Amino acid sequence: MATLTLPDAPTGPAAPPDVHHGVPHDHDVSRDYGPECVRARRDWVEARTGAALHHVGAYSFDPAATHGNIENFTGVAQVPIGFAGPLLIDGEHAQGEFVVPLATTEGTLVASYGRGMKVLTLAGGVRTTVSADAMQRAPVFGFDSAREARAFREWVADHFAGIKLAAESTSRIARLIDIDVFLASRFAFARFSFETGDAAGQNMVGKATLAACEWILSTAGSALGVRRFFLESNLATDKKPSHVNILRARGKHVTAEATIPGALLETHLRTTPRRLCEHWGIANVGAWLAGVTYNGLHAPNAITAMFIACGQDVANVAEAGTASLYVEVTPEDALYISLTIPSLIVATHGGGTGLATQRECLESMGCFGDGKARRLAEIVAAVALAGEVSLGAAISANEWVSAHERYGRKR
Amino acid sequence: MATLTLPDAPTGPAAPPDVHHGVPHDHDVSRDYGPECVRARRDWVEARTGAALHHVGAYSFDPAATHGNIENFTGVAQVPIGFAGPLLIDGEHAQGEFVVPLATTEGTLVASYGRGMKVLTLAGGVRTTVSADAMQRAPVFGFDSAREARAFREWVADHFAGIKLAAESTSRIARLIDIDVFLASRFAFARFSFETGDAAGQNMVGKATLAACEWILSTAGSALGVRRFFLESNLATDKKPSHVNILRARGKHVTAEATIPGALLETHLRTTPRRLCEHWGIANVGAWLAGVTYNGLHAPNAITAMFIACGQDVANVAEAGTASLYVEVTPEDALYISLTIPSLIVATHGGGTGLATQRECLESMGCFGDGKARRLAEIVAAVALAGEVSLGAAISANEWVSAHERYGRKR
Amino acid sequence: MATLTLPDAPTGPAAPPDVHHGVPHDHDVSRDYGPECVRARRDWVEARTGAALHHVGAYSFDPAATHGNIENFTGVAQVPIGFAGPLLIDGEHAQGEFVVPLATTEGTLVASYGRGMKVLTLAGGVRTTVSADAMQRAPVFGFDSAREARAFREWVADHFAGIKLAAESTSRIARLIDIDVFLASRFAFARFSFETGDAAGQNMVGKATLAACEWILSTAGSALGVRRFFLESNLATDKKPSHVNILRARGKHVTAEATIPGALLETHLRTTPRRLCEHWGIANVGAWLAGVTYNGLHAPNAITAMFIACGQDVANVAEAGTASLYVEVTPEDALYISLTIPSLIVATHGGGTGLATQRECLESMGCFGDGKARRLAEIVAAVALAGEVSLGAAISANEWVSAHERYGRKR
Amino acid sequence: MATLTLPDAPTGPAAPPDVHHGVPHDHDVSRDYGPECVRARRDWVEARTGAALHHVGAYSFDPAATHGNIENFTGVAQVPIGFAGPLLIDGEHAQGEFVVPLATTEGTLVASYGRGMKVLTLAGGVRTTVSADAMQRAPVFGFDSAREARAFREWVADHFAGIKLAAESTSRIARLIDIDVFLASRFAFARFSFETGDAAGQNMVGKATLAACEWILSTAGSALGVRRFFLESNLATDKKPSHVNILRARGKHVTAEATIPGALLETHLRTTPRRLCEHWGIANVGAWLAGVTYNGLHAPNAITAMFIACGQDVANVAEAGTASLYVEVTPEDALYISLTIPSLIVATHGGGTGLATQRECLESMGCFGDGKARRLAEIVAAVALAGEVSLGAAISANEWVSAHERYGRKR
Repeated sequence: MATLTLPDAPTGPAAPPDVHHGVPHDHDVSRDYGPECVRARRDWVEARTGAALHHVGAYSFDPAATHGNIENFTGVAQVPIGFAGPLLIDGEHAQGEFVVPLATTEGTLVASYGRGMKVLTLAGGVRTTVSADAMQRAPVFGFDSAREARAFREWVADHFAGIKLAAESTSRIARLIDIDVFLASRFAFARFSFETGDAAGQNMVGKATLAACEWILSTAGSALGVRRFFLESNLATDKKPSHVNILRARGKHVTAEATIPGALLETHLRTTPRRLCEHWGIANVGAWLAGVTYNGLHAPNAITAMFIACGQDVANVAEAGTASLYVEVTPEDALYISLTIPSLIVATHGGGTGLATQRECLESMGCFGDGKARRLAEIVAAVALAGEVSLGAAISANEWVSAHERYGRKR
Repeated sequence: MATLTLPDAPTGPAAPPDVHHGVPHDHDVSRDYGPECVRARRDWVEARTGAALHHVGAYSFDPAATHGNIENFTGVAQVPIGFAGPLLIDGEHAQGEFVVPLATTEGTLVASYGRGMKVLTLAGGVRTTVSADAMQRAPVFGFDSAREARAFREWVADHFAGIKLAAESTSRIARLIDIDVFLASRFAFARFSFETGDAAGQNMVGKATLAACEWILSTAGSALGVRRFFLESNLATDKKPSHVNILRARGKHVTAEATIPGALLETHLRTTPRRLCEHWGIANVGAWLAGVTYNGLHAPNAITAMFIACGQDVANVAEAGTASLYVEVTPEDALYISLTIPSLIVATHGGGTGLATQRECLESMGCFGDGKARRLAEIVAAVALAGEVSLGAAISANEWVSAHERYGRKR
Repeated sequence: MATLTLPDAPTGPAAPPDVHHGVPHDHDVSRDYGPECVRARRDWVEARTGAALHHVGAYSFDPAATHGNIENFTGVAQVPIGFAGPLLIDGEHAQGEFVVPLATTEGTLVASYGRGMKVLTLAGGVRTTVSADAMQRAPVFGFDSAREARAFREWVADHFAGIKLAAESTSRIARLIDIDVFLASRFAFARFSFETGDAAGQNMVGKATLAACEWILSTAGSALGVRRFFLESNLATDKKPSHVNILRARGKHVTAEATIPGALLETHLRTTPRRLCEHWGIANVGAWLAGVTYNGLHAPNAITAMFIACGQDVANVAEAGTASLYVEVTPEDALYISLTIPSLIVATHGGGTGLATQRECLESMGCFGDGKARRLAEIVAAVALAGEVSLGAAISANEWVSAHERYGRKR
Repeated sequence: MATLTLPDAPTGPAAPPDVHHGVPHDHDVSRDYGPECVRARRDWVEARTGAALHHVGAYSFDPAATHGNIENFTGVAQVPIGFAGPLLIDGEHAQGEFVVPLATTEGTLVASYGRGMKVLTLAGGVRTTVSADAMQRAPVFGFDSAREARAFREWVADHFAGIKLAAESTSRIARLIDIDVFLASRFAFARFSFETGDAAGQNMVGKATLAACEWILSTAGSALGVRRFFLESNLATDKKPSHVNILRARGKHVTAEATIPGALLETHLRTTPRRLCEHWGIANVGAWLAGVTYNGLHAPNAITAMFIACGQDVANVAEAGTASLYVEVTPEDALYISLTIPSLIVATHGGGTGLATQRECLESMGCFGDGKARRLAEIVAAVALAGEVSLGAAISANEWVSAHERYGRKR
């Protein structure tokens, strides 16, 4: 740990060593999770910055458990968790009442979701449906002209079996379900879609797609006239809201829907189905003006709070920022409301799901481990719907700010 | 705590009480942060779900500190933090070398940002510029026809002083800088923009805008023919990526830019300026195909990891998912690279910034408290740029997957 | 006309001479409108292609009138015109009943618009409102870094008067009303907005903006550190649908609205207000899926047919392809319906407005010459609304295809 | 023609009779193309409006030929045509040099396209590639919940053969190639894609899709729980720019590309490959700011001018307003430039293609009749590319305004 004595050097322990791809290191200090090294990092940061890392250094688990989750482990962020619920869910994977952990620092959030859950539960619960499930990587192949790119698309369609074999040789879990080739200029953008079981799967599909592309290139690269190749082309679309995700699922495509009797809305939320629909119609015009790809209210609040609590890749909130809210007044004058999230990326296996608090939160919903990812997707969508009900009601009843005054304020 | 004995009832303690706006409660159980109540909530969740909340219950601070940040406080998520850096920044608010806390569970992330930071630092650092700073609320006013809506827009322009007075009466900090009225159908959508000091300001501007609208409505509501009013219209655009944010800042509009000599790129990242530009050009076509509002690679990774560590409103990653990456080869054959994030919402005061680990992380960058928000924005943007350099290089050098194989894998 | 004898050469008369900007030609053959030259062009095309240009050569006006409208004049396209109406309009510039010329080759179009007009007229007419009126050019200035670009924005705001003087020195008509500077990377994109009277104004504002930029560059270009300059940057946004046009008018921002009693809808269109609203709500979801910037049905049909008839710049249909349709059922169970087109570019002066048939069509609506552009915008929007009513009713009544079977079929 | 005596009545002859779908009329006055009726319409319009329709009444063909193209035939718009070219094209359907008819009233347009064509021809011509060809109709089916919508998607996939049979029974030409079902809320949006030979096919596919849906509904509508049905849902996306068209062709997906030696650019257009690329890169940032779905310059100019000349459905310019321009400097320091238009709707059969001047224009390019639609698509794309070269060069050489001064000005 000699570099600790060189706190100003860009190669100190807080500065990870250069990533030498494929070159074995004798000792990769960025992945030393031992107590001395962790303490040395904190000392170094404290000495360098003058800040104390007293609380950051307080955690209840063995840092070695974070191997594969983080480099330069130095401590933890302690993010407050409040449980909300119960929320009655009528899903295909989630059935019954759930209380859900929300990790957030935004006052009112837990209370607001809670009141939406209460009304939805009283209304008979939320029906949830997962309609698609896939994870992508999208390499690009360059050619001399558009014509060779078009021929490449045909070749890929004709050789799907071979490509699939190559891709799936890299993983016991990843299953290639589709290669969608889009053409522009002299490039072929190939969107590889995989089933990835209960993992989010971004790394798994990266590796599988690379193997598939290597097979393509070695089998027919020169015959097809491939001149250029990049493993990613912005079409995947990792950590980005996109239109292609609206049409083609990234992660889970999930819909949560409910029908709420008018009397319930009036009693509990001081609004009516008609009033909520009126706001929805006008807010669609607002969405057009704003140029948003999500005409609802604040689904990312639920998604983020559950993602932090449950060890998800929280940056995927960027993808989940596209969604469709739909409401109507039923012939019985009840409110039908649904939220469709076409790109909700969740995992119950791998990534951060096995870490200490993260696993506990998943377990509190019966969502840890194999076979649970769609269950988690259903719960997240149902919770997000609760937030649409609660905030939609507050806005349509013009009560929104007063709620924040009550709950969002430090003493 | 009698309701604890009714664990199945939707009104149990984990179910927050209905939010009675403005109606005082004798005892709001959702905001009881005492040890018995917190323990009772954990017990209740454990009994109900069969999951242990052993680690969730481990925290190093007094839960009462979370008043105003969360309801139904039950424990914490412990999210691993790795520090990366140093990164040399030449900002107007951030000057010098910084090591930055990244809270994440995604292996490789800290290492990848670290290697980008190293190259940027060796290249002379990152120049950062905050070009705009504002927070919005966007009420909508309905009229009999488009003509009254147009007259309303004129009235608002003519009465800006009075509106501003009403809005600012609600806060010592919020300053109304602009009301941009957009017209569609018979509605006037009014986008109120405020300066909010070092707070993110969403609640502050909600309250101020409500006061402003109440003044408008009481002063001239019937003379102007206002028929309908909602405090929010989807144009704000809270927790949503939007085009209006690209044109008009939400939070900080910040640019990070650097020039990297070709030799540095080749030595440390095994790629060249020309190769990175080539990928950028093709990835712009990919972005067009995908329909993304961000043509870069993964800025939300940096933003999310820093937001979790630093007590930010993490769901604002949804807004930060719009950004522009620009690269070019300079006449000296170096790489010029810049990242512009037009809607980066950060706070160094209020919200979760004062919580235990969050404050420590902010302090490690000299970003806690008043007068520091733009400094934090500059650092976040500079870190995000480091990620674009590192991943852009990995993709253009076709080394991306191997890095993940090395760092993103559990033992 | 010696080149006529070289039909295979790329410099033949049908191939316009190279555009020598600013360099006077002794004789620019592309702008010879004399009968011999026009005939020679036809002969050359006929000889070269084997096609007859019998009908193309039939026109009723002196080709010299097309000077400034076309080069290499060879004849005309004869596009069928059908009149539809009367349509009762309650505008600020258009008042009363109008019959409108529609130039199209799409069967059913005139009939469908006619039936919409009939119902709207019986319902009391269409109210129209022009809310904004502007034409843009958007140059871009490049700097060493984002910081100089930001300073440039301030300089422009501080020197608006001088810039305006320079811009307006180029035209008796153009009035600079606003310069909106948007920043990204190290560039300042300056969107110059002008009033252009009754001309569409694209060329006028190009010339004025160039003069303004030359003044900026000569006054302070080197002091401000301008390193690069292009007169257009894609932000104008000429001949392109764009989001900036939704927020900021290009051409006329116009709304047409009407309230149609339920009984009228049922009698004449066999549908109901509720049914049309139901379709609108679902079609908003469809619009989200499709990724369109126009949630209505077919406004470009009306716009195109009127533009061809009236000598407009028909390619501006690209800009007019963004619009917002809004419907609701009123408390009286009538249908309120409105169409807002934020970027409708029309002219009643200059361009093709003075040509033979084009002028007659404009005159048939009292729209030729000075002071009539907003009147034309109101009429176009009202007609477009008629098409939304007619097609919306046909779809909601499931009668759409049968109408096309009847009207859209050759004998 | 008694109604002629009632010029103020909304049921006069210029007001088309209500469209009685499926109900036979004894005499449909809107489709009387006889000379007396046509004259009576002109007289009526003239009497009513005070405008002369002298030139509108001048045409060189028998109005009866417009049966199926227009109702209330009253005369024609005479739109000036200039030919430009020759342009050397190396397509799969278009081979050799073409001169092309451009119908426009915008001065400079023909000259500017001509100079682009000249340079492209000297550079060895334009390579064109049609990569997809389809026309759509997109009905929507409503259900009780998202789950039935999902089951519907599966049913449709399982019954493609039956659906295809039903669809194709309506036409000798239409071939159903794909049904892409997208889910949102409790709706299934089914995008039916057809091959339509050399017709644009909008009506053909409407009829075929209706038959297919009737078969679906009668076969399994109640078993599948279909509760609602509309033949169109905004997903088609007729007369609208859309993202789904970028991913999935509407009409022809066509790319035009060329490589232009640097010396040619400098000699003829006073710019360089590097300078054009520089502008392209910056204009991509401008496109991001503007929120356009087309990063090029003015392709709709070429498309509109050719569409008017050639009897196309000109309103389809709305769809063609999405395109991708890509440029790069080759290792030989030449300019590679390509334009991809994913939704170019052209016809060489049906619609307005057989009208007098329209047919002549098509014939001048060998594009009239069966088997020619892809040839026309290739030519249109090649011409559009010429416009990108010419205007891109003018902007990058800062010569743009002076060209308009020369050509765009009345004497």
